[in-house]
Amino acid sequence: MPNNKETMQAYVCHGPHDYRLENIVRPHAKEDEIIISIGGCGICAGDVKAEHGAAMFWGDDPWIKVPQVAGHEFYGDVVEIGEMMAKKWNVKIGDRITAEQIVPCGECRFCKSGQYWMCEKHDMYGFQTKIADGGMSEFMKLGPRSIIHKIPKSLSKKDCALLEPMACGIHTVRRAEIDLDDIVVIAGAGPLGLCMVQVAHLKTPKKLIVLDMSDERLALAKKLGADLVINPGKENAIEIVKGLTDGYGCDVYIEATGNPIGVKQGLEMVRRLGRFVEFSVFGKETTVDWSVIGDRKELDIRGSHLGPYCYPIAIDLFERNLITAEGIVTHEYPLSKAVEAMEMAASIDSIKVVLVPDDKFNK
Amino acid sequence: MPNNKETMQAYVCHGPHDYRLENIVRPHAKEDEIIISIGGCGICAGDVKAEHGAAMFWGDDPWIKVPQVAGHEFYGDVVEIGEMMAKKWNVKIGDRITAEQIVPCGECRFCKSGQYWMCEKHDMYGFQTKIADGGMSEFMKLGPRSIIHKIPKSLSKKDCALLEPMACGIHTVRRAEIDLDDIVVIAGAGPLGLCMVQVAHLKTPKKLIVLDMSDERLALAKKLGADLVINPGKENAIEIVKGLTDGYGCDVYIEATGNPIGVKQGLEMVRRLGRFVEFSVFGKETTVDWSVIGDRKELDIRGSHLGPYCYPIAIDLFERNLITAEGIVTHEYPLSKAVEAMEMAASIDSIKVVLVPDDKFNK
Amino acid sequence: MPNNKETMQAYVCHGPHDYRLENIVRPHAKEDEIIISIGGCGICAGDVKAEHGAAMFWGDDPWIKVPQVAGHEFYGDVVEIGEMMAKKWNVKIGDRITAEQIVPCGECRFCKSGQYWMCEKHDMYGFQTKIADGGMSEFMKLGPRSIIHKIPKSLSKKDCALLEPMACGIHTVRRAEIDLDDIVVIAGAGPLGLCMVQVAHLKTPKKLIVLDMSDERLALAKKLGADLVINPGKENAIEIVKGLTDGYGCDVYIEATGNPIGVKQGLEMVRRLGRFVEFSVFGKETTVDWSVIGDRKELDIRGSHLGPYCYPIAIDLFERNLITAEGIVTHEYPLSKAVEAMEMAASIDSIKVVLVPDDKFNK
Amino acid sequence: MPNNKETMQAYVCHGPHDYRLENIVRPHAKEDEIIISIGGCGICAGDVKAEHGAAMFWGDDPWIKVPQVAGHEFYGDVVEIGEMMAKKWNVKIGDRITAEQIVPCGECRFCKSGQYWMCEKHDMYGFQTKIADGGMSEFMKLGPRSIIHKIPKSLSKKDCALLEPMACGIHTVRRAEIDLDDIVVIAGAGPLGLCMVQVAHLKTPKKLIVLDMSDERLALAKKLGADLVINPGKENAIEIVKGLTDGYGCDVYIEATGNPIGVKQGLEMVRRLGRFVEFSVFGKETTVDWSVIGDRKELDIRGSHLGPYCYPIAIDLFERNLITAEGIVTHEYPLSKAVEAMEMAASIDSIKVVLVPDDKFNK
Repeated sequence: MPNNKETMQAYVCHGPHDYRLENIVRPHAKEDEIIISIGGCGICAGDVKAEHGAAMFWGDDPWIKVPQVAGHEFYGDVVEIGEMMAKKWNVKIGDRITAEQIVPCGECRFCKSGQYWMCEKHDMYGFQTKIADGGMSEFMKLGPRSIIHKIPKSLSKKDCALLEPMACGIHTVRRAEIDLDDIVVIAGAGPLGLCMVQVAHLKTPKKLIVLDMSDERLALAKKLGADLVINPGKENAIEIVKGLTDGYGCDVYIEATGNPIGVKQGLEMVRRLGRFVEFSVFGKETTVDWSVIGDRKELDIRGSHLGPYCYPIAIDLFERNLITAEGIVTHEYPLSKAVEAMEMAASIDSIKVVLVPDDKFNK
Repeated sequence: MPNNKETMQAYVCHGPHDYRLENIVRPHAKEDEIIISIGGCGICAGDVKAEHGAAMFWGDDPWIKVPQVAGHEFYGDVVEIGEMMAKKWNVKIGDRITAEQIVPCGECRFCKSGQYWMCEKHDMYGFQTKIADGGMSEFMKLGPRSIIHKIPKSLSKKDCALLEPMACGIHTVRRAEIDLDDIVVIAGAGPLGLCMVQVAHLKTPKKLIVLDMSDERLALAKKLGADLVINPGKENAIEIVKGLTDGYGCDVYIEATGNPIGVKQGLEMVRRLGRFVEFSVFGKETTVDWSVIGDRKELDIRGSHLGPYCYPIAIDLFERNLITAEGIVTHEYPLSKAVEAMEMAASIDSIKVVLVPDDKFNK
Repeated sequence: MPNNKETMQAYVCHGPHDYRLENIVRPHAKEDEIIISIGGCGICAGDVKAEHGAAMFWGDDPWIKVPQVAGHEFYGDVVEIGEMMAKKWNVKIGDRITAEQIVPCGECRFCKSGQYWMCEKHDMYGFQTKIADGGMSEFMKLGPRSIIHKIPKSLSKKDCALLEPMACGIHTVRRAEIDLDDIVVIAGAGPLGLCMVQVAHLKTPKKLIVLDMSDERLALAKKLGADLVINPGKENAIEIVKGLTDGYGCDVYIEATGNPIGVKQGLEMVRRLGRFVEFSVFGKETTVDWSVIGDRKELDIRGSHLGPYCYPIAIDLFERNLITAEGIVTHEYPLSKAVEAMEMAASIDSIKVVLVPDDKFNK
Repeated sequence: MPNNKETMQAYVCHGPHDYRLENIVRPHAKEDEIIISIGGCGICAGDVKAEHGAAMFWGDDPWIKVPQVAGHEFYGDVVEIGEMMAKKWNVKIGDRITAEQIVPCGECRFCKSGQYWMCEKHDMYGFQTKIADGGMSEFMKLGPRSIIHKIPKSLSKKDCALLEPMACGIHTVRRAEIDLDDIVVIAGAGPLGLCMVQVAHLKTPKKLIVLDMSDERLALAKKLGADLVINPGKENAIEIVKGLTDGYGCDVYIEATGNPIGVKQGLEMVRRLGRFVEFSVFGKETTVDWSVIGDRKELDIRGSHLGPYCYPIAIDLFERNLITAEGIVTHEYPLSKAVEAMEMAASIDSIKVVLVPDDKFNK
């Protein structure tokens, strides 16, 4: 439903350690744009890292362009739509939609060959002012380069807010090419890891093992499809996995810890000729003997980034109740409490925190 | 031709920093064995590292079993052959043959599924006493688990001595899956890198670039098929490669330097969604931000070990004069000068050094 | 438990239209052999075709070597075992086991590279006298080239008898590489098709559609995991599938009808760049315009034969109750009624018919 | 150079058996269009088949939309260019260019995912009036959906005219994934087969064998890279290929004959687990037992259509003199003799016939 206010509340990044809750001008749609009324916007570990001043975001030539509205895990209802976009995406006022995080340039070699998620320019919602203001706000503008997906109203609000992480989880699991006789280890039961667990389970590996330092998260992982969970803070995970595999090691190791120890542990735990999927963003460098990759084990290490071609799959799986956001989305905050929400997102007490515009909160 | 001596000269490893030129008992063939009269045996960087006491060979539970005759890049003529082996390999007295470096156990999951080169037990000629004494000797015994390849007499002695490294180079290039529009960088123009250059050239990439700190080796790389050579000690290799690729980076990077800088440079030089093939054995650990593998570039990092199913290819390509050992085999020494030969192998003045039993030297 | 009888009942093939229930000499185990007391042996469509004189079995140089005991879908308990086999397979008296249908020669290029199921010699249990007598008997000898699998006693007898077809079904589904967004059509709900349905379901395609001319079999397919079933005798299957896919066609088509119409229908129903997996043995030739494969649709047509590396998966999935033989094994007959059993197997009234030695029947 | 004439000569298809040499209105460029002055346009077997009334072009709902200018193997120099196109393709007046045969719709699932060559709408230059008039004319309009490639002036006119078939040949060879130990058979040494021979040679198979009924074409194939040529009209090709491969059969078979016998021969000649690449457009149906695909040999049959992502490769290889049109382009005709040219194209006396606008003929 259209809203006549001409300003709106938004959580705006002005630089490292400088995020502000502000009233800014509400956007309107040109012919090749869409305005959505935000339903919710998840807080990503990346948002927390950006606020805390991580080097990868704020180097000499900062990739983040300020001031910009943060947030890339958003969804909302269409309140304004240009004719070109209505036709292109078959979308109308009132439809619930999301857009992929990446805003492809359309002109680089990757965009031209279907590999849009590795776009060389790499604009991302929530990180570039004007081009790609994000979803921590009441309204959000989606431009002509957006990739739009319609969301059935049957999906829960939590499911909608988890679409972006779930798409990433699906892509990561696809990169693993899980076979029926694979012993699969997923390291890290954060929001991403817990999405991966659900998707990996749907590929029916021989055994799905999840590692995390939190017993609560491990209990949730088990509920979501893990056959076995191990807390490496309490048990010798490498020994257990080797014991389960006649000493060979696991067939597939998915690294979703973001911690160098997660890499080292994986290189040790995976069998010769195994697959090691690297999803994480790391806060520091990893020191390891690369001989293990070639000479010792001839591994396949496969990076994974974003959720290309995976949003429709995530929507379909949520709709069929084969995956869920229950248990993963642990907290919702009104947008006006964005500061507190970011704090909670940075804490071990939450898994996924979602911001909801105040007029929709608890409705 | 049979030889009646009952002892033979051999270069024997007794431990780190303890390799000795000795007279040891000459082996004879049982029903399931072959004895070859060694024609030559190349010295591998691994042999040098083992002699120098590298940790990977001499840890708490040393993988090398001493005393053992060193050397795994050998070939020779059959002088004794058991009936079982004659039938199994269709080989007879006088045939020139080699055996693959790996001596598969035949019982592990890898051996049972055709992935013999990643055998879990991993016996290797030149590293395990009795089971797998190596080729730095006058005679050598090949046991029932050996994988034998016949060599046509048309191959030069240098070509024969380079079969094992060439098989490794072929396997590495296969792992790279070079396409006609790939810009390929091979880092390191040592003996292995120079084998890879020749094989990569046969797959006709768009451009084949070789990096090395030695201008002499680069000149040889160019002669052997490189389209462009860069000395990173003198020029900014990353800038040049990015400049040649509209800023994207190379499609394929093959790491054959054995130096952590070769890994870092490659991760920076390779394009998003590129292939990075890791062949090297490293003397030290590599410190790098693993975010580049997933989040930043979604790479495929593919390890490469040994030369499975590649010896027949190497023999065929040598026979068709599509590859050569000329220029790569820089020195030959009589076996009695093994100590000097090892020194030369450790020096930058040589590329590949070959030991030849004294009675065959310069004949 | 050992059995002291020196003859045994067996259903023996003497040629086309000449299968006889006979008493023959009971085999005993040499050092490299195993004798099992048959628990049951399924009747394959191939057995029926062989009895009926199909050209593929009985050409000028018949592949079937007579007289031989028929039957390749067998399992049983070890009653005698040579030392070599006991060690090689870690099996002892009393263990329940099966052997793969193929008896690899161990010497051809396929056997040497892990592709044993395409062995050039291609001996198969139930088709070659002495080398590979089959399982329609009281006892059966498994030779040194057999590939043995242990079966937990927790599996039902029907599950055990369905292991061979299930392994074939798993291999076929693997060849299809089913992704989460694939619309998959399986054509043919015979015993093999119904195995495939269960396995395909475990890979969670977007939609799993099964085609068959029998409504009863379609009802069973639905129970076993199909999302949608279509009887092409009553509905326009091509139109329905195109309708479900915005006119594109299905992503994957698995041909398990054995009828040329199943091929034609699939080539029409599958989308451009789709995967078409061919499993069937055909009784007659298929006439079709091959332009559709390249020029029109650029398809991937992938053959599928036997169940390589799939028996352990089948056993594991049965054990975890993720698949079942219930509903597929429709009839069991005592071995003494093999003639009637073969008739039932040839009839549309049965799906899978199993022969059980008389002393075990209904126990 | 601009040309002031307002009409131009063109060879126009009005229906089966109704192609006319006419003067039609010369096109001009709007903002999103380019006009090229045609340098040459090859005659494809498809053009001949269309003129002769082949059913695949002229069914109940003809895919060809008449009247249209024929010809899709064209190149030319830019004489008019709209601003949008100049910017998009970085092209200016005077540049030599070509456009891919396919004119992608940009909206179907294939276009959206980088698989533009299998575009569901499938407009093709030379087959759809107005949307995609072809190159058998003096001038030709390239629209906004065209995929443009710049051609260096160093390429010969024959090379330019062969770009489209060469791109198809490259794509076909890529589908074959030729390895260093592959015995490769290419069946058919027509213009396409001869392009494939050159490209396959650049991947260095173990042996490259070409089959054709014409000794002249086989002699040319040998000159262009074949190691062995066989005339199946005079020799038993299947026997020879099996003899060269220890009875196994070839590893790769590329079908480029367009004749059902080429399919049957290939299915017999290829080894178990081999790759069979199907490129041809067939004039009639092929009758064969499909059991060979699955049960007998577990083949990979891979279709091939057009030359996606291959034009830049073709241009690069021509520029590096690694491939050539010499010997393949056998005849050039002035456009005014299009009727005679089409006759020659239909004759066995020509390989590739090229039409050249009269004012450029022999210049």
